[in-house]
Amino acid sequence: MKPYAEMTPEELTAEIAELKKEYKRYQNMELQLDMSRGKPCAEQLDLSMGLMDALDSNADLICEDGTDCRNYGILGGIPEAKELIGDMMENHPDNILIFGNSSLNVMYDSISRAMTHGIMGNTPWCRLDKVKFLCPVPGYDRHFAITEYFGIDMIPVPMSPTGPDMDMVEELVASDESIKGIWCVPKYSNPQGYSYSDETVRRFARLKPAARDFRIFWDNAYGMHHLYDHDQDYLIEILAECKRAGNPDLVYKFASTSKITFPGSGIAAMATSLNNLQDIKKQMSIQTIGHDKVNQLRHVRFFNDIHGMVEHMRLHADILRPKFETVEDALERNLGGLGIGEWTKPKGGYFISFDSLPGCAKKIVERAKKAGVKMTPAGATWPYGKDPQNSNIRIAPTYPTLDDLRTAAELFTLCVRLVSAQAILEEKKTA
Amino acid sequence: MKPYAEMTPEELTAEIAELKKEYKRYQNMELQLDMSRGKPCAEQLDLSMGLMDALDSNADLICEDGTDCRNYGILGGIPEAKELIGDMMENHPDNILIFGNSSLNVMYDSISRAMTHGIMGNTPWCRLDKVKFLCPVPGYDRHFAITEYFGIDMIPVPMSPTGPDMDMVEELVASDESIKGIWCVPKYSNPQGYSYSDETVRRFARLKPAARDFRIFWDNAYGMHHLYDHDQDYLIEILAECKRAGNPDLVYKFASTSKITFPGSGIAAMATSLNNLQDIKKQMSIQTIGHDKVNQLRHVRFFNDIHGMVEHMRLHADILRPKFETVEDALERNLGGLGIGEWTKPKGGYFISFDSLPGCAKKIVERAKKAGVKMTPAGATWPYGKDPQNSNIRIAPTYPTLDDLRTAAELFTLCVRLVSAQAILEEKKTA
Repeated sequence: MKPYAEMTPEELTAEIAELKKEYKRYQNMELQLDMSRGKPCAEQLDLSMGLMDALDSNADLICEDGTDCRNYGILGGIPEAKELIGDMMENHPDNILIFGNSSLNVMYDSISRAMTHGIMGNTPWCRLDKVKFLCPVPGYDRHFAITEYFGIDMIPVPMSPTGPDMDMVEELVASDESIKGIWCVPKYSNPQGYSYSDETVRRFARLKPAARDFRIFWDNAYGMHHLYDHDQDYLIEILAECKRAGNPDLVYKFASTSKITFPGSGIAAMATSLNNLQDIKKQMSIQTIGHDKVNQLRHVRFFNDIHGMVEHMRLHADILRPKFETVEDALERNLGGLGIGEWTKPKGGYFISFDSLPGCAKKIVERAKKAGVKMTPAGATWPYGKDPQNSNIRIAPTYPTLDDLRTAAELFTLCVRLVSAQAILEEKKTA
Repeated sequence: MKPYAEMTPEELTAEIAELKKEYKRYQNMELQLDMSRGKPCAEQLDLSMGLMDALDSNADLICEDGTDCRNYGILGGIPEAKELIGDMMENHPDNILIFGNSSLNVMYDSISRAMTHGIMGNTPWCRLDKVKFLCPVPGYDRHFAITEYFGIDMIPVPMSPTGPDMDMVEELVASDESIKGIWCVPKYSNPQGYSYSDETVRRFARLKPAARDFRIFWDNAYGMHHLYDHDQDYLIEILAECKRAGNPDLVYKFASTSKITFPGSGIAAMATSLNNLQDIKKQMSIQTIGHDKVNQLRHVRFFNDIHGMVEHMRLHADILRPKFETVEDALERNLGGLGIGEWTKPKGGYFISFDSLPGCAKKIVERAKKAGVKMTPAGATWPYGKDPQNSNIRIAPTYPTLDDLRTAAELFTLCVRLVSAQAILEEKKTA
């Protein structure tokens, strides 16, 4: 089939009629499918059921340093969990702080602490007239929700396959003292699945921010989440690179086992410089006596070591790979050559990013919804939910079964075609 | 033996010599005992080892409403946990929010949220010139640490066996709009083990605060923590009483299973009005996707229901009762009639409160420390760590073994006698 833009109004009208018939057919199926959130599927969760046996009533719950994990004590995590998570995050255990079940919560608390108490002796952000964050776009809606909640101005920075536009990042942070941070998902980014290039990471580590309390919020959520065994993205480790560049305190790095074991019942962590850790621990010691050490121990006993975790992630990949390929196949098969959309082909992570013709995203998502397929709301990948092009749609292929996904992907591409054909026809008429 | 105050200087000198000899004997024992923190002992922790078997790899992890507890979802707690914790807190499940592992963290977050976003539409506290809290004294050091950390002025309010001085509380909250809250441990209070009388709770529910965003921070940490089977304190349920009094939104109530199962690996909760819940959930939904549902389910399966929890608490009581009685026996036997100290005889909770002669507390704690017995630092029970009388000492009898506790209690009373005798002698000399 030729590109829609090259079709005559008559051809487009015929195509639309055909697509509408097909759409009706899907509507009659009364589907209830969900490609909206980055949730693991039941089969993935089954992989971690051994976690429930890792500790039983005969287990020795004393951790390496002699602490009884059942009791109060140890603010920053048990030693063996710091080692495992250190290996996972590629950082020294001394640079690791283990928290509760949610890295989002750790990020929220980091911003909240900066608001009320400031970072390393600097003015609390709540006392400043203006606080701004850079937001690579498209990006993660829950990041943007935190900064919006705290009234922080968000400045979009375009993403490319190598990472954020670093010329823009460098210039902005160097010239504006009110810019206090940037949200990054550096590996298998949300939603594109892009991984920052070596050059990008190097430039991040060498930023010269006007604000002394500027921090890179490096949410390495998908560090272990490869789809392929031999075709994996590698990222320069940012903390080490910052140290080498003479900017040791520039980065807060976050990760969790949420999409490794159980979302909501995993362990979250932060890796950062000892100066930052000391600053953060001052607050932590007021906020809590400690996090769930038994669950930390449970994770260590389940994985044993980082190799155990890597092997475990291969099993996740075996489940997810066909799902990503199913969606990519449908996109290529149904949209290839039509000139009505572009999409990413990630080698890991949880999402595929789709860009429709400008102005079509909301309608496509609406169409899909009306036929029983839930997508992430169009605009969600932008600060304030406002995608100026109205073109980006995040596809989350992990949760549905492969069968459901096949149907959902077909329907999605059908909606893209229908909405796009209508838009092009409309344009041709008004032109 | 007659009261120290009635002894002649010669008698006191002889007594001091005798006590010093005895103290030396203890020093030579090279003790390493800890009566400083309210930690359960190993024997208590053993009671909950069944928690580790409550879920295994064959367990059905779907909760009542059909949610897979292993995955994302459910912000405020799974239904069966809300029911169990509702029964524990004596509140309707609809009024319950389940959080992570620490009620201290929930209290901290409640204050932090009030600082940055305000309570139910009122001005965020960080924008006010002055924010004040009432602090019944002696009280819980970690409460005071939170308000101090946020720069909130703390006003001490004297405690009595029936609760805080309510005349003072009523007058202060009615007259000063900058007073935004009060810390309460209403049952088996920390450190006295006092329970608020019916009259006190009724007056709390009928407060007429000048500040619309005044909240009672009702930390019912020891609601289930009785020492005796038939001699238990009952508390009027504050949320219901507030509702009856026409002040439904006046109270934030906190509790956790920290000293029921495992500290650090339990579940924490809040009970409050639906208006407050709605206000809080707005923030929660930004801060996290949800708390640890698997651990919530684990607790429900372990206890089955509130009766299971009550029976479990009887086993705790069997371990703790002899410990409290050991300390009380030593206090009575060694200090009774000497007129150098007063102490509480709680029917539950985790602490005994001791009041020495004015000016002696720090020296007593120092003496005990030098002989290898660690006590809570004197002053800790007051805001800013400053006990104006320098007389209150918190005794935590739960953690040491019964044998160790016997030794520690003997040494403690010895230190009280020695320091008091010296102080009285000094006074007589200078008089």
